[in-house]
Amino acid sequence: MSYHITALDELVEQFEKLPGIGHKTAQRLAFYVLGMDLTDAQLFADTMVRAKKTIKRCQVCQNLSDSDTCAICADTTRDKSTICVVEDPRDVFAFERTKEYFGSYHILGGLLSPMDGIGPEQLFIKQLLARLSSGQVKEVIMATPPTVEGEATAMYISRLIKPLGVKVTRLAYGIPVGGTLEYADEVTLYRALEGRNEL
Amino acid sequence: MSYHITALDELVEQFEKLPGIGHKTAQRLAFYVLGMDLTDAQLFADTMVRAKKTIKRCQVCQNLSDSDTCAICADTTRDKSTICVVEDPRDVFAFERTKEYFGSYHILGGLLSPMDGIGPEQLFIKQLLARLSSGQVKEVIMATPPTVEGEATAMYISRLIKPLGVKVTRLAYGIPVGGTLEYADEVTLYRALEGRNEL
Repeated sequence: MSYHITALDELVEQFEKLPGIGHKTAQRLAFYVLGMDLTDAQLFADTMVRAKKTIKRCQVCQNLSDSDTCAICADTTRDKSTICVVEDPRDVFAFERTKEYFGSYHILGGLLSPMDGIGPEQLFIKQLLARLSSGQVKEVIMATPPTVEGEATAMYISRLIKPLGVKVTRLAYGIPVGGTLEYADEVTLYRALEGRNEL
Repeated sequence: MSYHITALDELVEQFEKLPGIGHKTAQRLAFYVLGMDLTDAQLFADTMVRAKKTIKRCQVCQNLSDSDTCAICADTTRDKSTICVVEDPRDVFAFERTKEYFGSYHILGGLLSPMDGIGPEQLFIKQLLARLSSGQVKEVIMATPPTVEGEATAMYISRLIKPLGVKVTRLAYGIPVGGTLEYADEVTLYRALEGRNEL
């Protein structure tokens, strides 16, 4: 005979759906929620639904936004002639943390991956090309990750863009700042050598 | 200038409150929720509030339950003369998994820890003593963890129970099944030696 509490099992199941959360962790989180005040649990639940309801995609760059046009696209001080193309909204946060990029962004919403059934139609590539048609954009920086999918996506998009006469660039490869040469893989080191600059 | 999305920040903040979830993970989980269908997010939120609302403490053993008396306490086939005293409901799941314990439980809801301001009044010790007053209970197994707090709690409670003429036992210490002697700490090994049994 087993003594399951349905409501608890259901909550564990919900937590288990989250990425990187296994059964044990889901159980721990569920117990934690049960230990919260009802008002706190209610607030958590409401915040989740509210975020989901208020946050949509910016109609220009496809970044997450609580208005039709995101704050970066709406900011007139940002350089609209440069578009940095990234995989997802988290990458925007990463670039913003550098405090050195003042152009705009375009979020692809993923990377090309035929194995997973993700083709150009599943990404916001059409929307990117539409932005280039105004003739205002001078440079597109491909900032997809240095992985097989990231490279393929960057190549694919750059081939679509070049005929439009827009400059397409790619992030530099090289050794990460603070990294040690000893642990750099040979491809990275080769790329760092190849991309060396005069001092 | 920063470009925060309030609803997203709030959701990240809620996830960050969960135990073992740092800022990066909270962000990842929040983004995942934003990627869910609205109905799924709503279901998650509802499940959380429902679990919190329907699950209370069993009035006998203080375990989590969706009814006044939990399924184990309500089960007439379980041996009510033996009570296994544990720290929290997760320990009950652990014992049930052995499929070898057929007595009842009592959940303390924590361990004595004067440093954290947790004294006997914060635990369900009074409720345990009340259960012993019926004279039906023959043995109380102290199954608190083998830590300083767990030991102190077991000692404290056993001293309260012994005068009532009820047998108090403690879980055996020893080497874990499947463990290697090489990595067993000296205290565990000493206890295993001390508690050796004739073959």
